[in-house]
Amino acid sequence: MPEFIDLLPPDIALTNFLEQIPRQVESEVIEVKSALGRVAVNDVHAPHSLPAFHRSTVDGYAVIASDTHGASDSQPVYLVQIEEIKMGESPDFTLLTTQCGLIHTGGMLPKGSDAVVMLENTQVARPGEIEILRAVAEGENVIKVGEDIAAGAVVVAGGTLLRAAEIGGLLALGITELQVARRPRVGIISSGDEIIPPESVPNPGQVRDINSYSLSALVEQAGGVPQRYGIIPDDYEKLRGGLERAIDENNMVVITAGSSASSRDLTAQVINSLGGPGVITHGVNIRPGKPTILAGCQPAGVDWIKPVIGLPGNPVSALVIGILFVEPVINFLHGQDYLRPRGRLEAKLAINLASKAGREDWVPVKILPVENGFSAEPIFGKSNLIFTLCRADGLLHIPPHSTGLNAGEIAEVMLLN
Amino acid sequence: MPEFIDLLPPDIALTNFLEQIPRQVESEVIEVKSALGRVAVNDVHAPHSLPAFHRSTVDGYAVIASDTHGASDSQPVYLVQIEEIKMGESPDFTLLTTQCGLIHTGGMLPKGSDAVVMLENTQVARPGEIEILRAVAEGENVIKVGEDIAAGAVVVAGGTLLRAAEIGGLLALGITELQVARRPRVGIISSGDEIIPPESVPNPGQVRDINSYSLSALVEQAGGVPQRYGIIPDDYEKLRGGLERAIDENNMVVITAGSSASSRDLTAQVINSLGGPGVITHGVNIRPGKPTILAGCQPAGVDWIKPVIGLPGNPVSALVIGILFVEPVINFLHGQDYLRPRGRLEAKLAINLASKAGREDWVPVKILPVENGFSAEPIFGKSNLIFTLCRADGLLHIPPHSTGLNAGEIAEVMLLN
Repeated sequence: MPEFIDLLPPDIALTNFLEQIPRQVESEVIEVKSALGRVAVNDVHAPHSLPAFHRSTVDGYAVIASDTHGASDSQPVYLVQIEEIKMGESPDFTLLTTQCGLIHTGGMLPKGSDAVVMLENTQVARPGEIEILRAVAEGENVIKVGEDIAAGAVVVAGGTLLRAAEIGGLLALGITELQVARRPRVGIISSGDEIIPPESVPNPGQVRDINSYSLSALVEQAGGVPQRYGIIPDDYEKLRGGLERAIDENNMVVITAGSSASSRDLTAQVINSLGGPGVITHGVNIRPGKPTILAGCQPAGVDWIKPVIGLPGNPVSALVIGILFVEPVINFLHGQDYLRPRGRLEAKLAINLASKAGREDWVPVKILPVENGFSAEPIFGKSNLIFTLCRADGLLHIPPHSTGLNAGEIAEVMLLN
Repeated sequence: MPEFIDLLPPDIALTNFLEQIPRQVESEVIEVKSALGRVAVNDVHAPHSLPAFHRSTVDGYAVIASDTHGASDSQPVYLVQIEEIKMGESPDFTLLTTQCGLIHTGGMLPKGSDAVVMLENTQVARPGEIEILRAVAEGENVIKVGEDIAAGAVVVAGGTLLRAAEIGGLLALGITELQVARRPRVGIISSGDEIIPPESVPNPGQVRDINSYSLSALVEQAGGVPQRYGIIPDDYEKLRGGLERAIDENNMVVITAGSSASSRDLTAQVINSLGGPGVITHGVNIRPGKPTILAGCQPAGVDWIKPVIGLPGNPVSALVIGILFVEPVINFLHGQDYLRPRGRLEAKLAINLASKAGREDWVPVKILPVENGFSAEPIFGKSNLIFTLCRADGLLHIPPHSTGLNAGEIAEVMLLN
């Protein structure tokens, strides 16, 4: 095991790493209605303005604003109702001064009108004659042409992850197909002589493979396509062959070593044998997850350097490092340029927690609602127990400069999902 | 449009509603490795302890703790190294007093040993003889049998959403199949005479259907299976027929009215004609989304009351109410008993925002990282513009009791995803 002196803090290790990895985004055209969680490749411009006509935002009467000036409860203005404007239809008349037309929310303003008086501020004087009880300004209660989006404006910027709102916005403009980034394919390898498949019965000394599956779930959630390569024993040639194939067939590879130091060292050795820069960072100043490997490999016949992340074998470290390193690399390869803030909570720490200065700690916590917020209760247990994570709602962050947090302090919790 | 006096606050409206809706969770057996986002139906118990053997948490020497008492740099204890413990194998010897065995992280402790001395605290005196430089207590650097989870303990409680951690935990125990709740099927209907399909070219006065698709995305994200029933014109018989069919074929139905008040009233009328309690709540004290309808219908031939949620036609209200009402109802029908806290941010408001006392407001905001946290900038524009949501990272919450927030105040932002 290398000496972990002068280890990089996680954020700097990640930034350095991404600077050394090329981004090759492949694209495909898909239907917008199925584009949830995909990433737009190019800027998309509005083919026309939205709304495409002046729309009323209320139920009321379309009017010429200047006709209503001075109107009040005590001094109503009287207008002649000439027509009702049907939903979904274009009024076939032009409103003249002293006239008004009944209009519904979302209805199209007739030519000549420039405002709408809310129904509540009107009264039918007699059939065909309407009392206007409040003046309106030009444009009042109206969404003007292009007020939602103007023709030619950028609707969705390239590099944006598509959410329900973007899907709605694109379809509102009649954009039903879109060029999106292909989901990054992520090869997943487990190694370690003690690891067996989950469906097998372990002999004493053996443990079942967790990481292949928990990391697959994480890759899927992050927008990648997981491809599992099974369990490879701690054998240089076998591991090298498996990793080479996984690099060739995917956009990135995640490899979890066995829990022993020799298994981790073998991983680094194999990575360094496969071309490209090899191991860029070995060891990060974080707990859990210190022995993380960040690497780039370019085996013969592969067109560019592909990221390879070596994760510690213990399942908690693997998942935490998965969230902190694998996810951002997937987002990068997926072409995401605008990363929205990730959900978190501020919670009051229930007990004192110590931490080593200089090291970033992530502590599994249970979140409980309390008056005016949340309480975070650390889950006891050694850091490599998978069920500490099953019991946790999130990971409490102790920043590198801190030597610990006191009970009652407010801390940031990253939610696990 | 009914008078919206004494409208319920959203949380109370939702609680009341869920109390009147029966929960009929259907289940199916699926593979655990594909169970991300599914909900366990029953408590799952550990078939055996984990770990199933005493494991070392470090690289070092397995020892009998009492042999090391008093050991220090100046007064080392000398032990005889009898064997190396191979990863994945059960040591075939019993450790006797004054003996030690080389062991790796994750390795199985040999019989007789009860602690591990870290490699750093040892030194090879001569081949086969090890200097122990630090005493260890019984159990030190060891994960004991059952320390992760004890045989028979609840691994995953019924009603729990399965995340990467739960998938890992279940597979660690060899549980490869699981009974989960079927995903709730959610029928989605758009109504309104002005609404046309997204692939059509609107005439003046018409607008494209957004809600069917943005709500489908939201349903999918919440774990439901969306089933779209297209656009139904504002016609009593057609709407009644469509809604009846959607209720019959799904576990719940979401119907977005056209934007006019008459379209919304028609929705309520049709809901009330379809058996069951009909409209339970019409109008909620919230902006956007005030005209929301919460209803339960049981048409002839349908075995139980199914929830029907009527959403305002404007796309922003539809999505906000989708998050605040449709999502929790999907979670309820999906059998979720333990709802984990949803991600949010605390952000400093960039400008003053007014609000009506008694009403809960959700304001679309852009989130910008600033020193020591985040800043929330409200997105200007009328509340029914879809592109205000496309530009937003989240919705800032103004609680009902507040008459507004001042620039610089910290507010809670629910992130949009």
